[in-house]
Amino acid sequence: MATLEFQVTGMTCGHCEASVREEVSEVAGVEDVQVSSQTGALAVSGADDINVDAVIAAVTEAGYQAVQN
Amino acid sequence: MATLEFQVTGMTCGHCEASVREEVSEVAGVEDVQVSSQTGALAVSGADDINVDAVIAAVTEAGYQAVQN
Repeated sequence: MATLEFQVTGMTCGHCEASVREEVSEVAGVEDVQVSSQTGALAVSGADDINVDAVIAAVTEAGYQAVQN
Repeated sequence: MATLEFQVTGMTCGHCEASVREEVSEVAGVEDVQVSSQTGALAVSGADDINVDAVIAAVTEAGYQAVQN
């Protein structure tokens, strides 16, 4: 299992975390999403071929900005 | 139409506003809810007999604290 790590800006609360988790969970190959509004950390685990751009696009869809660490 | 005004603490974003709006809209007699996470202002309009305690309880249900102005 691969894990990709990102830094997300703009999240302020648990609702924001839930929005990011919901969108990122829909990306192909994603099996687990860990996200913290306090630190901005986003860890995405699953298949070896998770598309980084798709994860970033999912975060954008949720209304936030992500960059891969 | 009566309008009741409250101050809400703990909201940080639009998701928080939506949560408050959703819960307060379910209170008997409520026809309009205006809420701002930036100022904490909550204005509830509708019937003359809207129950203040029910509005405060609805805000609590959403996860925040309200006091009537």
